[in-house]
Amino acid sequence: MLERFKPKPEDSERVTVESLHEVVCAIFEKMGVSRTDSEEAANVLTMTDLRGVETHGVSNMLRAYVDQYTSGQVNPNPNWVIERETPGTAVINADRGLGIILGRRAMDIAIEKAKTVGVGIVTMNNGGHLGAVGHFSMHAAKNDMVGMCATAAGTGVLPTFASEPRFGTNPISMAAPGKNEAPMLFDAATSQIAGNKFSLAKRVGSDLLPGWIADKEGTPILEETPVPEDGWYGSLLPVGGTRENGSHKGYGFMLMVEVLGAFLSGSVPGMFDTERFESGYKHYFAAYNIAAFTDVDQFKEKMDRMLKMLRETKPAAGHDRVLYPGLAESEDEEDRRANGVPLHKEVMEWFDNMTGELGVPALEVL
Amino acid sequence: MLERFKPKPEDSERVTVESLHEVVCAIFEKMGVSRTDSEEAANVLTMTDLRGVETHGVSNMLRAYVDQYTSGQVNPNPNWVIERETPGTAVINADRGLGIILGRRAMDIAIEKAKTVGVGIVTMNNGGHLGAVGHFSMHAAKNDMVGMCATAAGTGVLPTFASEPRFGTNPISMAAPGKNEAPMLFDAATSQIAGNKFSLAKRVGSDLLPGWIADKEGTPILEETPVPEDGWYGSLLPVGGTRENGSHKGYGFMLMVEVLGAFLSGSVPGMFDTERFESGYKHYFAAYNIAAFTDVDQFKEKMDRMLKMLRETKPAAGHDRVLYPGLAESEDEEDRRANGVPLHKEVMEWFDNMTGELGVPALEVL
Repeated sequence: MLERFKPKPEDSERVTVESLHEVVCAIFEKMGVSRTDSEEAANVLTMTDLRGVETHGVSNMLRAYVDQYTSGQVNPNPNWVIERETPGTAVINADRGLGIILGRRAMDIAIEKAKTVGVGIVTMNNGGHLGAVGHFSMHAAKNDMVGMCATAAGTGVLPTFASEPRFGTNPISMAAPGKNEAPMLFDAATSQIAGNKFSLAKRVGSDLLPGWIADKEGTPILEETPVPEDGWYGSLLPVGGTRENGSHKGYGFMLMVEVLGAFLSGSVPGMFDTERFESGYKHYFAAYNIAAFTDVDQFKEKMDRMLKMLRETKPAAGHDRVLYPGLAESEDEEDRRANGVPLHKEVMEWFDNMTGELGVPALEVL
Repeated sequence: MLERFKPKPEDSERVTVESLHEVVCAIFEKMGVSRTDSEEAANVLTMTDLRGVETHGVSNMLRAYVDQYTSGQVNPNPNWVIERETPGTAVINADRGLGIILGRRAMDIAIEKAKTVGVGIVTMNNGGHLGAVGHFSMHAAKNDMVGMCATAAGTGVLPTFASEPRFGTNPISMAAPGKNEAPMLFDAATSQIAGNKFSLAKRVGSDLLPGWIADKEGTPILEETPVPEDGWYGSLLPVGGTRENGSHKGYGFMLMVEVLGAFLSGSVPGMFDTERFESGYKHYFAAYNIAAFTDVDQFKEKMDRMLKMLRETKPAAGHDRVLYPGLAESEDEEDRRANGVPLHKEVMEWFDNMTGELGVPALEVL
């Protein structure tokens, strides 16, 4: 994550992982979610904050989930079912269950299928928000698989040359296991930045960079600009920003995720929202059984060797080092397990109010 | 393709599709390739030019293939074999056979597997150049599947913050069928531009745009710049260009293709090239059987409706219309079937020399 999105140390307090997990779990239980499912939700959110992915951790998402349970948009006790199935594929109707809770189960089904036929693809319609999609790819990687996960949802992003939004930020992720190196975990919105980066930017008082959003006529804004007063929805550009800089590729990736998530789950793309009969989140889970393709041990050794080569690549002038996807997050995890998870004061305030209101224990500050 | 890459009409001549197909086929036969395989190669190359994808049609690639056959790098009569197989997956050793000839067969295997278990994944090691990867995704789409295809090859592209190249231009593609709309076909390098765009830019006398390449120290060049005198290799940036503009995402996509193509085919990434014991091209083919996921007819209707919505989206200020991936290419195909395929005079000259040298019929100019 760019430095500009990180809360300043003087604006944050650190809380213990254990306390964060306990409080998040208790909040979910208060929403009517079972103990098991609440623990699953707390695992996903805590891990996301541990890995420094603040956009999708407790700061932005927990309050959204609380709102969605309260309003009835999300079902705390979903009766999810497999609607269609083959040896290598399954389509799940999530019955408006939250994605962060059902995601691991969907990936587990993909993993089981991959053990039998080499690859497993599971799609999910009628779901809730999935959180950081990389979390579920990582679950597959821990089972000696290459994992992929993506979500299609909403319509806040402009296609190239368009002045009306047509796609969600449609993130996609891949994880692959190594041996000793921090695992490869790529997880990115196919828009210039994730939707949640806007609230993060607002919270930490940071402007947006050139080429991230467009004006009301669809023209990319090519200078630094504040987060729009009336929100970002409809202004966000695809990866690349401008056509000359490759936004047609970002547009293509958004469309790719729409096909995998929305179309292959039998659902509809977000742009058909006038007829939306279901919750707007559609998910895609893929597990590739490495053993079906090659020797697992050799795969992991080669992966380690590649990741090491990447981080030892001679950096460009003015840069300290070359990262690979997942490396900085792994370092964040190590730091935060030892020193606690930093939360912005505004987030702490939300927790104080919420835990007081719901009558659950307060966060333990380090 | 940006206008800057297109040959000016006064610099080109149009040839008939039939003549182009015949001549290309005859050239392949002279390379020792069987009649059937030569026809397959001519189909792929001619279709690529018909769709206006000049980077990967006859202009740049045919001469490369001729060189590779002549030097023995590519095997005209490969004895390709399936090395590992499960109901949903297969790994092919291509025996240095050209990808454009073997690609459809690999996708056919993926399609057959998808008919049985819902999804088919085929990877290929020890292969030759695959041409435009979208061609093979499209083959799956014609069989009521969602098709994906990608290639990992070489090491010309810089990771974010790096001064040494580590990845190929690693293109990825997806095609999905509709009913009446021109089919969706996304096909893009995960670098800022395809490697072949450099020769195209040189041929048509066009500069490179800001953020496409870096200087020798790895610093992105943020102004228009000519194609480097000593070639582009090692200077190309990932999609996004700069970190602020999302090059870490392009980097992640390059890595994703490396995992799918090189790692899942049991091969090695291009960056291990000191130990390369095989040809450097590694391919990935995926077919998703739409019927395994949802109703095929409904899928296609929804696809049509989405594609129509996209092309009818209100354009941004100063733009005529919104395209979707595959639309302009489909229009090019219609034009070129009717009016012939335009070839740059430099390409015509190459054909004249080559057909004379090999004793095959010359191209028929319209």
